[in-house]
Amino acid sequence: MRSITLFTGQFADIPLEILATKAHQWGFDGLELGGHIDLHKASTSQEYCQEILSLLSKNNLKLFAISAHLVGQAVCDHIDERRHRSILPEHVWGDGEPEGVKQRAAKEVIAAAYAAKNLGIKIVTGFTGSSIWHLLYGFPPIDPQQINEGYEDFAKRWKPILDEYKKCDVYFALEVHPSEIAFDIVSAERTLNAIDNHSSFGFNFDPSHFGYQGVDYIEFLCRFKSRIFHVHMKDVDFDWNHPCEAGVFGGHTIFGDPRRFFNFRSLGRGKINFEKIIRTLNQINYQGPLSVEWEDGDMDREVGAQESLQYVRRLDFKRGNIQFDAAFSK
Amino acid sequence: MRSITLFTGQFADIPLEILATKAHQWGFDGLELGGHIDLHKASTSQEYCQEILSLLSKNNLKLFAISAHLVGQAVCDHIDERRHRSILPEHVWGDGEPEGVKQRAAKEVIAAAYAAKNLGIKIVTGFTGSSIWHLLYGFPPIDPQQINEGYEDFAKRWKPILDEYKKCDVYFALEVHPSEIAFDIVSAERTLNAIDNHSSFGFNFDPSHFGYQGVDYIEFLCRFKSRIFHVHMKDVDFDWNHPCEAGVFGGHTIFGDPRRFFNFRSLGRGKINFEKIIRTLNQINYQGPLSVEWEDGDMDREVGAQESLQYVRRLDFKRGNIQFDAAFSK
Amino acid sequence: MRSITLFTGQFADIPLEILATKAHQWGFDGLELGGHIDLHKASTSQEYCQEILSLLSKNNLKLFAISAHLVGQAVCDHIDERRHRSILPEHVWGDGEPEGVKQRAAKEVIAAAYAAKNLGIKIVTGFTGSSIWHLLYGFPPIDPQQINEGYEDFAKRWKPILDEYKKCDVYFALEVHPSEIAFDIVSAERTLNAIDNHSSFGFNFDPSHFGYQGVDYIEFLCRFKSRIFHVHMKDVDFDWNHPCEAGVFGGHTIFGDPRRFFNFRSLGRGKINFEKIIRTLNQINYQGPLSVEWEDGDMDREVGAQESLQYVRRLDFKRGNIQFDAAFSK
Amino acid sequence: MRSITLFTGQFADIPLEILATKAHQWGFDGLELGGHIDLHKASTSQEYCQEILSLLSKNNLKLFAISAHLVGQAVCDHIDERRHRSILPEHVWGDGEPEGVKQRAAKEVIAAAYAAKNLGIKIVTGFTGSSIWHLLYGFPPIDPQQINEGYEDFAKRWKPILDEYKKCDVYFALEVHPSEIAFDIVSAERTLNAIDNHSSFGFNFDPSHFGYQGVDYIEFLCRFKSRIFHVHMKDVDFDWNHPCEAGVFGGHTIFGDPRRFFNFRSLGRGKINFEKIIRTLNQINYQGPLSVEWEDGDMDREVGAQESLQYVRRLDFKRGNIQFDAAFSK
Amino acid sequence: MRSITLFTGQFADIPLEILATKAHQWGFDGLELGGHIDLHKASTSQEYCQEILSLLSKNNLKLFAISAHLVGQAVCDHIDERRHRSILPEHVWGDGEPEGVKQRAAKEVIAAAYAAKNLGIKIVTGFTGSSIWHLLYGFPPIDPQQINEGYEDFAKRWKPILDEYKKCDVYFALEVHPSEIAFDIVSAERTLNAIDNHSSFGFNFDPSHFGYQGVDYIEFLCRFKSRIFHVHMKDVDFDWNHPCEAGVFGGHTIFGDPRRFFNFRSLGRGKINFEKIIRTLNQINYQGPLSVEWEDGDMDREVGAQESLQYVRRLDFKRGNIQFDAAFSK
Amino acid sequence: MRSITLFTGQFADIPLEILATKAHQWGFDGLELGGHIDLHKASTSQEYCQEILSLLSKNNLKLFAISAHLVGQAVCDHIDERRHRSILPEHVWGDGEPEGVKQRAAKEVIAAAYAAKNLGIKIVTGFTGSSIWHLLYGFPPIDPQQINEGYEDFAKRWKPILDEYKKCDVYFALEVHPSEIAFDIVSAERTLNAIDNHSSFGFNFDPSHFGYQGVDYIEFLCRFKSRIFHVHMKDVDFDWNHPCEAGVFGGHTIFGDPRRFFNFRSLGRGKINFEKIIRTLNQINYQGPLSVEWEDGDMDREVGAQESLQYVRRLDFKRGNIQFDAAFSK
Repeated sequence: MRSITLFTGQFADIPLEILATKAHQWGFDGLELGGHIDLHKASTSQEYCQEILSLLSKNNLKLFAISAHLVGQAVCDHIDERRHRSILPEHVWGDGEPEGVKQRAAKEVIAAAYAAKNLGIKIVTGFTGSSIWHLLYGFPPIDPQQINEGYEDFAKRWKPILDEYKKCDVYFALEVHPSEIAFDIVSAERTLNAIDNHSSFGFNFDPSHFGYQGVDYIEFLCRFKSRIFHVHMKDVDFDWNHPCEAGVFGGHTIFGDPRRFFNFRSLGRGKINFEKIIRTLNQINYQGPLSVEWEDGDMDREVGAQESLQYVRRLDFKRGNIQFDAAFSK
Repeated sequence: MRSITLFTGQFADIPLEILATKAHQWGFDGLELGGHIDLHKASTSQEYCQEILSLLSKNNLKLFAISAHLVGQAVCDHIDERRHRSILPEHVWGDGEPEGVKQRAAKEVIAAAYAAKNLGIKIVTGFTGSSIWHLLYGFPPIDPQQINEGYEDFAKRWKPILDEYKKCDVYFALEVHPSEIAFDIVSAERTLNAIDNHSSFGFNFDPSHFGYQGVDYIEFLCRFKSRIFHVHMKDVDFDWNHPCEAGVFGGHTIFGDPRRFFNFRSLGRGKINFEKIIRTLNQINYQGPLSVEWEDGDMDREVGAQESLQYVRRLDFKRGNIQFDAAFSK
Repeated sequence: MRSITLFTGQFADIPLEILATKAHQWGFDGLELGGHIDLHKASTSQEYCQEILSLLSKNNLKLFAISAHLVGQAVCDHIDERRHRSILPEHVWGDGEPEGVKQRAAKEVIAAAYAAKNLGIKIVTGFTGSSIWHLLYGFPPIDPQQINEGYEDFAKRWKPILDEYKKCDVYFALEVHPSEIAFDIVSAERTLNAIDNHSSFGFNFDPSHFGYQGVDYIEFLCRFKSRIFHVHMKDVDFDWNHPCEAGVFGGHTIFGDPRRFFNFRSLGRGKINFEKIIRTLNQINYQGPLSVEWEDGDMDREVGAQESLQYVRRLDFKRGNIQFDAAFSK
Repeated sequence: MRSITLFTGQFADIPLEILATKAHQWGFDGLELGGHIDLHKASTSQEYCQEILSLLSKNNLKLFAISAHLVGQAVCDHIDERRHRSILPEHVWGDGEPEGVKQRAAKEVIAAAYAAKNLGIKIVTGFTGSSIWHLLYGFPPIDPQQINEGYEDFAKRWKPILDEYKKCDVYFALEVHPSEIAFDIVSAERTLNAIDNHSSFGFNFDPSHFGYQGVDYIEFLCRFKSRIFHVHMKDVDFDWNHPCEAGVFGGHTIFGDPRRFFNFRSLGRGKINFEKIIRTLNQINYQGPLSVEWEDGDMDREVGAQESLQYVRRLDFKRGNIQFDAAFSK
Repeated sequence: MRSITLFTGQFADIPLEILATKAHQWGFDGLELGGHIDLHKASTSQEYCQEILSLLSKNNLKLFAISAHLVGQAVCDHIDERRHRSILPEHVWGDGEPEGVKQRAAKEVIAAAYAAKNLGIKIVTGFTGSSIWHLLYGFPPIDPQQINEGYEDFAKRWKPILDEYKKCDVYFALEVHPSEIAFDIVSAERTLNAIDNHSSFGFNFDPSHFGYQGVDYIEFLCRFKSRIFHVHMKDVDFDWNHPCEAGVFGGHTIFGDPRRFFNFRSLGRGKINFEKIIRTLNQINYQGPLSVEWEDGDMDREVGAQESLQYVRRLDFKRGNIQFDAAFSK
Repeated sequence: MRSITLFTGQFADIPLEILATKAHQWGFDGLELGGHIDLHKASTSQEYCQEILSLLSKNNLKLFAISAHLVGQAVCDHIDERRHRSILPEHVWGDGEPEGVKQRAAKEVIAAAYAAKNLGIKIVTGFTGSSIWHLLYGFPPIDPQQINEGYEDFAKRWKPILDEYKKCDVYFALEVHPSEIAFDIVSAERTLNAIDNHSSFGFNFDPSHFGYQGVDYIEFLCRFKSRIFHVHMKDVDFDWNHPCEAGVFGGHTIFGDPRRFFNFRSLGRGKINFEKIIRTLNQINYQGPLSVEWEDGDMDREVGAQESLQYVRRLDFKRGNIQFDAAFSK
């Protein structure tokens, strides 16, 4: 049975000491730190890393991955003060001059690799940002070269980052997600091509971002099996039989609006087929943790984290080693 | 039975003389001119308008609406030379300085109203563009004020345009569509609010842009019934039971790519429920034309236009005026 | 290929001379007379019958069945002046005293048998009424004996009628329908039991009354195969995936209200699987006519009758007499 | 988390002392008294009310609502000795003269308001009966005035009742249900109109009566959000993909017959989407209890009540107060 | 509540002493012995039988049925050394001469009846084999007589066996299954006809073999209600909305291959509607055990057996004995 | 627009002179000869070939392919006199000794290549037979080696045949079909591997054999795009929502039995998505004919052939050569 961890991003306002105690009481096997770690400090201070590891260990929690979603986002994005400033550390934002922000963000993503190394883990999960996400839908007509340039920009900015990851023997796991350079199977393939299949780059598989888009997330696992470095368990609700007022593009509404086509859900209350995901993870021999990323605007998060953990525990299973035939063997 | 017209945008390379002859032979009742009319010239020259009307009349074709989609798009968009230059007339593009382009585009949209007046018709169909479309999905987090500003910008630029439409007694019918200020029911309501329900503004209903988004297009007709100024008959195929490689967000692919979640289709070959649309148009008493916007990357357009016309003819029906009870009356 | 007839009830205001001419021009093979025949007169006057037959013959129209729906309804119903007076001939209504009305209605149904005999046909289609329809749903609790009494009342009133039919060698074909003694498979079985499977009693199969109820109309054909005396082709639209405001019970709305769960439809525009019906009629060897009962509140009835005829012509097919194997034979 | 109560009607043969003990042991938070209270006595005797409250309190059970379903039914119904006598108290039935029964039933419904007041609660749940339910389906043709008269009769009889409720500051919550004046969204709207939206009248929402009818119960909650005074949790099974022998109209069968289209079910074993109901109740801010109305002809009721309670506990959830963005906040 | 037993075939390599202890700890009420019993010995030795019964009894396990699947298979099959030798006891295989093997297999099936008698139970579950299974699909064309001969061969070989069963007052319950003489409803009827409805022959109902074939397993229970002698609870997954690479015919793949259309599953993880099965078993008054046949190539069998037991416990329910009306009774 | 041909196997009893006249009158563009050609004679006599070509030419019919289905079947099958004799020419059957029959059948398949060459065409459609089809389902357990041997036998017998095809520059197009060496995607891949992707071997795509199996026929076209040598248009009906009495394995019933899960159908009356097939054929650039293989046990074959032709004509379409953008171009 795989370890089940809690992604801490949605609990970033709770001090790690407290959250770790709660997570342990709830029954989690570990944490995926998002917002509870100073990447820069961890990249340079073994002592700081040791404190974190001790704290976790005291609560019987394992660590498999840390998150660099927020700084990763700024590497390729068109920097917008009203949107990016709030998600970046002060020292990355600096004077806010876009190119400077992007370069400092890249450095921080590299810091995450060294932080991971210092923490003795292999995985950094995160976002990449994208300079071409806004070209969505494609009207007015898009010069295909514009898309190429977006992937070239990504490659130019991320190859040096990934080379550092390689040095650290750490892997960057992109959460394929709208607003990133990869957000479905086609764009994920193009992303890998753009960086010549850099061996330090792979994916943090999160099915919630695929289901409502109509993307085949089981095929995603099969197609990129050797690149599935980490897995988020996150659910989403949508119902193609009931068209609504704000479609997949969201109608400029905020998450949680009941008029929306999709909203994230506590695990088991949405439409993602986790049974099929678990079986496919078995087939592709994914051995890492299942990290619960809990988000459900209608529900108390502590109640939700617990029911989600129970849901994953019930669903995941010990693999068999007996080959049955159509009927019983002798 | 309503008139069935052909939207000429997809045939813009065929001279109007030839296209009109063909459209008549194919059986259309009229044309919706898109790309076959110089809006500026038509706004100032009665003679030019008369030529157009004669040409149509000679082919037994009626005129109900002209298109200002392309210039409309530039009114609110962030102007991008690689994308907007090719869709704008030289005199609108001018030196390409963004604010200048937007203002000249606004003038051209006003010209379309005068053109319509000179042509003796009431409807200009078109796009509005949007300064906030790129904020789609909403990560990094969006300041709600950013969305408000987008609608304020739209109002500021379009209210003066619509006042001119009112003077001409002509109506602007926005084709609710991704990349426009309105692209579903929620955003359409917000759009109307932003301009205080300006009486000269309504919609060019095109179901193809709603179906694959999961937007309830029948509800759209009911909700905005008095604002349905024009109707496009355009089909689209998608299949929620078959998730694919490039989801609703399109995976940066171009239309026609078989890996896409949706592609436009010759009428009757997609998933739009036109039967229900016809009945709802009857209920809301829409009396205008049904304008075939044909687009299907796999098919010869002349063959397609003809089969689409036949499809609409078969589907539309003469309304009854007898109230049946559960059984026959005496 | 079976004959396709038009049920004339929905055209009762058009004189038979005119309707017959139209029906012939539209392409029908015959008429099922509903509202175009004076049953009493036809039961006594060979001359009157001859006139009708000549009129039909002049228009190349065949006659297979006549309708006694309206008078049949009054045989078992609780008589309500505001509802029944308008559907009954003056001589049946008389002074309106309920028991008297019911008995005179029974006589008129018998007259229909003699009319049929005089016209040289075998089938009278119709309704039976029901003294227990109002006990629908079953709250307050129903004494099962109340239902028994309803079927006993039916048997008491209809057995003598059916005996007369037997004398005439004519069959009464009940249109299984809400508000009748039989309205689904279970109640149809009970109906047959109540009259000891009287050999002169069977069904006018009309799938439109089954589909929206959730009744298996294909099973109906198989279960009662030897009792399928006549077939109505009538369509109905409903969509279980889209719950609505007035459900199957109708919400006290009138037919045609768009808020309703179901509405009758021109053939091919609803949800009835006529393909499967045709094949099952072949299997049970039904050789009678397919009688189009046209009803669609949104559509002109003359346009609708024609498209419905074409729909049935396209669907019905000549039966084969070759047994294919999995592949071609030598 | 809302309180979960048990509606006691299906356990009316078990003395309240015993039932209360069981309910507490099973884990319920309270009872909705149906059949365990003498409304007349409670309306006049504070002592009797105190006894009931003590008994409940002793078992840690809360009281939010009492039921007046049975007497309410007789207010508007056509009184039928074989159906109504068994559901009415002797003093309401009296000599059985219909108009007298109806008026005494109305008085008893008023007594329920005073009983509620004496018990310190705000809600009486119940039925209204209907003088027009039997006009279902609408053949023979219905004079629309007949329907109007039904609603006028309802208004005439219920307005005085509701005025008394207002005096008591108690609310009558109609369980929208077949055989009542309201049984879907359309008839519920008409009901409210008929009594000029009397402020003391609202609804006891019970989804089980909507699902199989094809009525949108989520829309019901949104449409009447300020009038949702009480909620029944009751499940029902049906399967539109499997048409059957006795359709929605029931085929004069009794509940539990396997040939029926729908049958009530222990919670979680039917087709009602309670997840969506809970979320919608959160959105409309319903704060009252969730009252389990258990009915499943196949199952032992004590086992069923317990599994249903557990089902509701698992489903209901504590609401959150944090606004998540698309991703974690800092 | 019915007893829940474990079919031991999939655990044949675990000695009975150990398996019985585990099964008891897991919570099972009994075992269905498959592979853990020497049928020949049990048919002749009361002592051996007593040992088995003691062992079970010591672990609080009941015995309702024993399996003769493997030897049963050889009775009608075309014997193939590479396939049958491994599933047969040495003394049945003997020299492998086909007719001899078949006759010795028949004797062993008879031995199973005597074994059952000695064990004090009534049911032997098993297979029959088939001499015509290979004629599947029917190309090249099959002479209908070939199928007849297959059923005649079955009757010839099994009637004497069944006569012995009758003598022992034991019943043979065929698991209707591909590769047997009966594998769906039609062939099950033909099977019963072939043996003149021999009273000692009935079925071991296992829904997993019907679901993926498109066979109506609920109808199977209703059709053969008096012949349902035993029930296997086994689940299977398939998804008609997702066509795959190896269809129902299996593509010569082995069970567990993810490219297959169907694979067996731990209970509750597949597509079988066990809720409906339980209710139907109640209706037909099946009182025997529910025997978990666990098979899921992806999962550890001990974990799976436990979760499957819990699943069945949760689903099965105590039957009620109160007739509810539409609402509560007094 | 592709040529539409008629496969003549189902009309084998009609002399070619008459059938050709009819096919031309019905509107077909050509014939695929099955049962109307003596392969041996055609392989040796240019004159005979010329006669055939003249006859077709006289009726304006083209020839693209001839069928070797029946003799092909005998190459790998276990020969069974009652099944194979009737489908083989006398000179192939000979004395019926199995190995001899198989070798003579192989020679006849080679003759078909020479016949094709003499007729100036490139394609022979046909079956291969299979020595392992009877191992379907896999119980008793199958030694994987048995399957391997089946493919080896196929390779051994067919490689020499295919080498002769190569010499003739003619291609053998296997109709992937139950009872052949390939019957779905997995087995088709294995088939190609077995013969080292022999360049003269490919497929006659017939979707009717895939749909009811749950095989993804669109994926089949994509996977084997360069090997799609010929296309059969044949429809089949099945309905996964309505489980039945004889499932996919057929219940030993014959085609046409209404209790079956699937039956072949006149084109457009089944469940195959021909629209999607046409578009996919366009994408993979299939330029060959669409050959109507008509089979529908309920329908007259001449009526059916005509309606099927019309169906294909309506569906197939002229490909476009204009790249549309999201909107009209200038």
